[in-house]
Amino acid sequence: MTTKWVYFFGNGQTDGQVGNKNLVGGKGANLAEMVDLGIPVPAGFTITTEVCNAFYANNRQWPAGLDEQLEENIVRMEAAMGAKFGDTENPLLLSVRSGARVSMPGMMDTVLNLGLNDATVAGLIKKSGNPRFAWDSYRRFIQMYGDVVMGVDHHNFEKALEAIKEAKGATLDTELSADDLKEVVEAYKVAILEVAGRLFPEDPREQLKGAVNAVFLSWNTSRAVRYRKMNDIPAEWGTAVSVQAMVFGNMGENSGTGVAFTRDPSTGENIFYGEYLMNAQGEDVVAGIRTPLPIKTLAEKKPAIYQQLVDIYMNLEKHYKDMQDIEFTIQEDKLYMLQTRTGKRTAAAAVRMAVEMFDEGLIDKETAIMRVEPSQLDQLLHKTIDPKAKLDVIAKGLPASPGAAVGKVVFNAEDAEEWAKRGEKVVLVRTETSPEDIGGMDAAEGILTARGGMTSHAAVVARGMGKCCVAGCSDAKVSEANKMVTLNGHQVKEGEWLTLNGTTGEVIIGQVELIEPQLTGSFGTLMQWADDLRALGVRTNADTPHDSEVARNFGAEGIGLCRTEHMFFEGDRIRAVRQMILAKDLAGREKALAKLLPYQKSDFLGIFKAMAGLPVTVRLLDPPLHEFLPHEDEAVQELAQDLGVSFEELKATVESLSEMNPMLGHRGCRLGVTYPEIYAMQARAIFEAAAEITKSGQTVIPEVMIPLVGVLPELKLMKEVCVEVANQVIAETGVTFEYKIGTMIEIPRACVVADEIAKEAEFFSFGTNDLTQMTFGYSRDDAGRFLPIYVDKGVLEKDPFQSLDQAGVGALVEMGVAKGRTTDAKLKIGICGEHGGDPSSIDFCHRAGLDYVSCSPFRVPIARLAAAQANIRNPR
Amino acid sequence: MTTKWVYFFGNGQTDGQVGNKNLVGGKGANLAEMVDLGIPVPAGFTITTEVCNAFYANNRQWPAGLDEQLEENIVRMEAAMGAKFGDTENPLLLSVRSGARVSMPGMMDTVLNLGLNDATVAGLIKKSGNPRFAWDSYRRFIQMYGDVVMGVDHHNFEKALEAIKEAKGATLDTELSADDLKEVVEAYKVAILEVAGRLFPEDPREQLKGAVNAVFLSWNTSRAVRYRKMNDIPAEWGTAVSVQAMVFGNMGENSGTGVAFTRDPSTGENIFYGEYLMNAQGEDVVAGIRTPLPIKTLAEKKPAIYQQLVDIYMNLEKHYKDMQDIEFTIQEDKLYMLQTRTGKRTAAAAVRMAVEMFDEGLIDKETAIMRVEPSQLDQLLHKTIDPKAKLDVIAKGLPASPGAAVGKVVFNAEDAEEWAKRGEKVVLVRTETSPEDIGGMDAAEGILTARGGMTSHAAVVARGMGKCCVAGCSDAKVSEANKMVTLNGHQVKEGEWLTLNGTTGEVIIGQVELIEPQLTGSFGTLMQWADDLRALGVRTNADTPHDSEVARNFGAEGIGLCRTEHMFFEGDRIRAVRQMILAKDLAGREKALAKLLPYQKSDFLGIFKAMAGLPVTVRLLDPPLHEFLPHEDEAVQELAQDLGVSFEELKATVESLSEMNPMLGHRGCRLGVTYPEIYAMQARAIFEAAAEITKSGQTVIPEVMIPLVGVLPELKLMKEVCVEVANQVIAETGVTFEYKIGTMIEIPRACVVADEIAKEAEFFSFGTNDLTQMTFGYSRDDAGRFLPIYVDKGVLEKDPFQSLDQAGVGALVEMGVAKGRTTDAKLKIGICGEHGGDPSSIDFCHRAGLDYVSCSPFRVPIARLAAAQANIRNPR
Repeated sequence: MTTKWVYFFGNGQTDGQVGNKNLVGGKGANLAEMVDLGIPVPAGFTITTEVCNAFYANNRQWPAGLDEQLEENIVRMEAAMGAKFGDTENPLLLSVRSGARVSMPGMMDTVLNLGLNDATVAGLIKKSGNPRFAWDSYRRFIQMYGDVVMGVDHHNFEKALEAIKEAKGATLDTELSADDLKEVVEAYKVAILEVAGRLFPEDPREQLKGAVNAVFLSWNTSRAVRYRKMNDIPAEWGTAVSVQAMVFGNMGENSGTGVAFTRDPSTGENIFYGEYLMNAQGEDVVAGIRTPLPIKTLAEKKPAIYQQLVDIYMNLEKHYKDMQDIEFTIQEDKLYMLQTRTGKRTAAAAVRMAVEMFDEGLIDKETAIMRVEPSQLDQLLHKTIDPKAKLDVIAKGLPASPGAAVGKVVFNAEDAEEWAKRGEKVVLVRTETSPEDIGGMDAAEGILTARGGMTSHAAVVARGMGKCCVAGCSDAKVSEANKMVTLNGHQVKEGEWLTLNGTTGEVIIGQVELIEPQLTGSFGTLMQWADDLRALGVRTNADTPHDSEVARNFGAEGIGLCRTEHMFFEGDRIRAVRQMILAKDLAGREKALAKLLPYQKSDFLGIFKAMAGLPVTVRLLDPPLHEFLPHEDEAVQELAQDLGVSFEELKATVESLSEMNPMLGHRGCRLGVTYPEIYAMQARAIFEAAAEITKSGQTVIPEVMIPLVGVLPELKLMKEVCVEVANQVIAETGVTFEYKIGTMIEIPRACVVADEIAKEAEFFSFGTNDLTQMTFGYSRDDAGRFLPIYVDKGVLEKDPFQSLDQAGVGALVEMGVAKGRTTDAKLKIGICGEHGGDPSSIDFCHRAGLDYVSCSPFRVPIARLAAAQANIRNPR
Repeated sequence: MTTKWVYFFGNGQTDGQVGNKNLVGGKGANLAEMVDLGIPVPAGFTITTEVCNAFYANNRQWPAGLDEQLEENIVRMEAAMGAKFGDTENPLLLSVRSGARVSMPGMMDTVLNLGLNDATVAGLIKKSGNPRFAWDSYRRFIQMYGDVVMGVDHHNFEKALEAIKEAKGATLDTELSADDLKEVVEAYKVAILEVAGRLFPEDPREQLKGAVNAVFLSWNTSRAVRYRKMNDIPAEWGTAVSVQAMVFGNMGENSGTGVAFTRDPSTGENIFYGEYLMNAQGEDVVAGIRTPLPIKTLAEKKPAIYQQLVDIYMNLEKHYKDMQDIEFTIQEDKLYMLQTRTGKRTAAAAVRMAVEMFDEGLIDKETAIMRVEPSQLDQLLHKTIDPKAKLDVIAKGLPASPGAAVGKVVFNAEDAEEWAKRGEKVVLVRTETSPEDIGGMDAAEGILTARGGMTSHAAVVARGMGKCCVAGCSDAKVSEANKMVTLNGHQVKEGEWLTLNGTTGEVIIGQVELIEPQLTGSFGTLMQWADDLRALGVRTNADTPHDSEVARNFGAEGIGLCRTEHMFFEGDRIRAVRQMILAKDLAGREKALAKLLPYQKSDFLGIFKAMAGLPVTVRLLDPPLHEFLPHEDEAVQELAQDLGVSFEELKATVESLSEMNPMLGHRGCRLGVTYPEIYAMQARAIFEAAAEITKSGQTVIPEVMIPLVGVLPELKLMKEVCVEVANQVIAETGVTFEYKIGTMIEIPRACVVADEIAKEAEFFSFGTNDLTQMTFGYSRDDAGRFLPIYVDKGVLEKDPFQSLDQAGVGALVEMGVAKGRTTDAKLKIGICGEHGGDPSSIDFCHRAGLDYVSCSPFRVPIARLAAAQANIRNPR
């Protein structure tokens, strides 16, 4: 039996390759899957990955039988498509694509329109009735083929094209006529002969063979090899080749093309949602050059095709159990599906779809939870326009990406970035956007475009960024050159204020109040499910009653990190702090600390009230004392007068306290060990507040956290200080309250000797910011000089301050957890670095067996969802 | 059968307790051991540790049978000593001491002269013929007994004594007569009655019972309990009580007392060496008040006793197989040994004794090696007086501690410390020293005393410090008040130069040339044995050809760390370095680097020649670039002129390069990744030098060390740079040479992912200085503010920068070794932090499986010895 090298798909038939990615690649398997679902796709076939291996094993020759199988399948394709490969009347044109098991950069791009030559181009003219289109397709095919198959660099073709444009007095490609393009075709062929030393092959079968071989050869380009090496992809996997019939949406008014989503990707509403253009190619829809029509209008224009499309989309969503992003082409009243893939969506849509698909019985709760990218939730937590605000709505566009934005108008990406860098809030206004604008879009509060639909570049990118966008606002006339936009006749110049409502598409003159998001409806439901499904607790990092309240509204289950140093900077406090630092003896320090006590106590009272019933972890003073002193001469002078000491004396003291490496200096519990009276005052403030709260009938569980512990005696000494104060306060007030004394694990050594430290610690909280600094030896303040270069050069995959370095810092965290729990199996362990709000870091924390994560208030919902996902991936 | 509670020793008999420390304590076992050796010791008995337990189990009552056994043993003692306990004619007096299995602070001190009362004191007067001595002994006994047994604090006795001195017009105790002291005895008894509410017990048996109970009670003082807890000593061990007959060396000219060593503790020479005084007590010899006589003179005075003493010392040394420090008393022509213990010795003596004892067949090589404390070797590496120098020897004292010292004369410890602090070399001159002088002795180059012998405070302490000392220089008259010393009539005032020869005892006027030590003879032999016995290699840290030569002479087997940044600071180089740093582009940097290349190459040539045939590890540039720039305005101005840029521009650049935490900043391989051209230049200098050396017929094995690697790609990138340069140099010169590329493991993360890093590293070298900084989060530059406090408060046992923190940093080192060797089982691993010269850290490195340690040149012999000891303790 000859090996089966080629697998057909189309016309309702496949050769059984569905699900066999290893044999036909991801693309080949997917196309076959659609066919199996009874969906009309342009017919085609896939040459297997085994051929690729045979090709290389066989000195780059085709294996026996491949030629014949190819022929058979071309015949099947011709039958399915009603056209003939190489025919001059009704030519079948082909696309050729590479397709490995996994998508892989460095591999050959698509070759389109294969089969065109001087003879078949006539057939295309006949079929399309559009000679310009036919010649343009032909010259594009030659260029693509010359480049990727024959190794003729594209600049050769550009040179030839420019020469003809110059001769014709044309500036743009579009100004060239069909005849001009025919000349271009000839010039391209000459270029190929000159550079490649071979003729462009007119024979379609020779074209096909060349393209197939080009795919195989692209498997071993240095770029592909490097990528495989980096990603542990074995060379033996090989690549498949998918050959598919071309279909054309621009063959007159009975043809068309469109993109659609099985639900509204913006709101998540369960409606068929999309756009199309008749007599157009796919690029026309996506590029935003012609504004496409809503998909619903197809129901009137082509009711049968519309109904077929509806049946297909429902079929696809049911099959894939997720919202699909589909591309279709109508060629002469026949519908072809070109692609289906899981559709991108806004956070709001993702949440709504997930909840509704569960309600519809399509997916289970776990799947619903996994459907929403936690970091995307950020979008939902953004501001909207105050409904009570009086709005001067001047224009309306498409509601391309929800949310609201207020900013000064700028007209190019560069300005957007520059203005944002100096702290200005800007709205980027463009006729349409292109990939070069990404940086500016990121810098802007929101984006307004005059052209393009819901699937235009601006809309897609903005949704991805979770950024407010109003697209296709035809009321807007943008002059980038004059830095001006005319909105329904009203001129808005650079720097003037504009407000956008991305949810309604409204464009508003001036600066409008924005309000906080409401976290109800689907969002609330999903969060509830997340809470039910997660094992990790979620706390917040908050230093004020206000932040505590915000976080509690977002679902925080307590405070994981309340920093006390921020409390030291305000008004009268900083004066007492400085008196304390500059005191010459214990008595002087205690006098100054006594002034601070009432402030600290009232801070804690406020926070404890906001978190009534929940645990509050308070970190005692952490930064080096010199951070509280002025450094500029003028400020030192002022302070000297205030304190009644000489400038010189104060200056000398300030200098003597300065450090070479304050990050590794006299800070954290090192201060506490040196000046126990400071920690004693803070402990007193905490416990007096706790006693008062307890007396008022509320509960609070203060958890006193000793920072920067590296050796057990540090914790032991500081714990003694705190326990003594607690006993005093209990004796003085007659009120008993629960409290815990634990430590931050943020020094590498603390991880290594966590079993020792757990002998005294009643809880651990990993301070992964400092732990990352010390484990890598990176100062966050200074790493800006090399970290971006490191990420650029691939030395680091990610900035370890944003996403926990699991291999290094993570290994220390795991060691700390394991060792800590050998001493105390029930030791409560959390994390309070900024990583506590990063989904992949949260997943790590779950796997590492932590009890909770703590993050900034606005990341609490993200953490709740990420924690649920972590537990679904690896149930505890 | 009744339990045996009491074990006798003396008169050649014991009860079988030798070696049973658990039963009779360390002291009880040792005394019995001497008796078993046939050595005359004052008779006595030991009450077992079991009694202590019974005492506590039995409500602090004595167990049945103890009273009777005590009586029996007192009778045996009386027979052995020819005196009777409580007798008024010939009273037996006792000492009572505590004695657990291990020596333990917090336990009861000795009670001496027990048995004295108003009646027996008469007997002592009769025996000694010295009423003043008898009454003084009595009043001292009451004070001691009152204090430790009856809980009457010693200040009560001092008050009583002062009152009588005042009444008698006496300033010093010695001015009191026998009758005065009798009054003191009465006053003390009154004080006891007043404070304790009980009479001082006149009955010797009651005295004994009280003292024994006091020993048991001292087992549970809070200080003793705390010590046991810290040292994991179980309370059940209990303490024994040793009761021994008192003997007196001050009973006339037939009595005497002395201390001796079985070999010369200063030189190690195998001679009987010691001092004695007739008609004196032990304190008189040690205190240095009377200058004792050399032991040899006893041979004439008391030939029989001298011969007995010689037999005993030989017996003891043979038994203990080590030099013994012995104390003896002659009471009325009868010799008693009071103590034998292993004697302290100078480094030279330790080395000589170790080698000679092996030659004598007394010990094996391993024991010889273990006999010398590695850090002590430092003494031998110190300077001596140039034998060719013309010496103005003005006086001679005892050669109390070897070596030579030159310094300006100071007359008190405080001045010594102050002068030394400001960089002066000083010689401390004192009539005699006391414990308060320790700081000044440490600060001084050498010590000269006018009084006291070889065992005086000055001599013992100086030897311990390895510091030159001339003691008991009777030619010297010191006036501390006038800050002047008269040496044989020649006046030397504060600040004038003096030279001491601690090996000969010579005192020399003026400043004499000193020369480096010769490392031959016993030292050379011992070092050879150490080399034979060690498993660890020993390299040196050296940055210059000179240091390399010194280290090679000390036995270094290569360079473990050659820092290249020091080479950047001299003359023209720093200018090129600054041009490189301030260059605006790659071309500018390369131009400046080209200027540096010849300098670097010649540096390496010199070092490679000095280390011909041995490996040389060169660390590429490590410190942040701003360290090479000036910071003061004036220097910046100068540099700006030199470089032809404006002051403002240069100042701005300098400021922009400064860092918050340079330790964690843009340094090490982070520089190499950012500016690969710097490392390329250094690699070229190394390889061109290696090629040149190889061409000249010598060999060299350069090991290029990439510093501060935390993630594998850093090493990979830098290795690529170096290998490319090596290939270029090999191609250019046509010379091939071996080389290695490895990395410093000095970032905690590098230990954690050492398996990854070993994929590219051809060797590891632990940089424990930085590793300690980052593992603890301590900046060495700043830790001075809290590290001393930490060591003081016991938060840290030792400064982790001096001795490797084995539990923390060490655990990371072990992890790095284990992980590195999972990737490459034969990976060569060393250490090049300062810990490489610290004996306990070297022991750790041996156990951790390192291949070599690298240390500063002068510590190489220490490392060789410590490495041998490590291998003896834990053979590989």
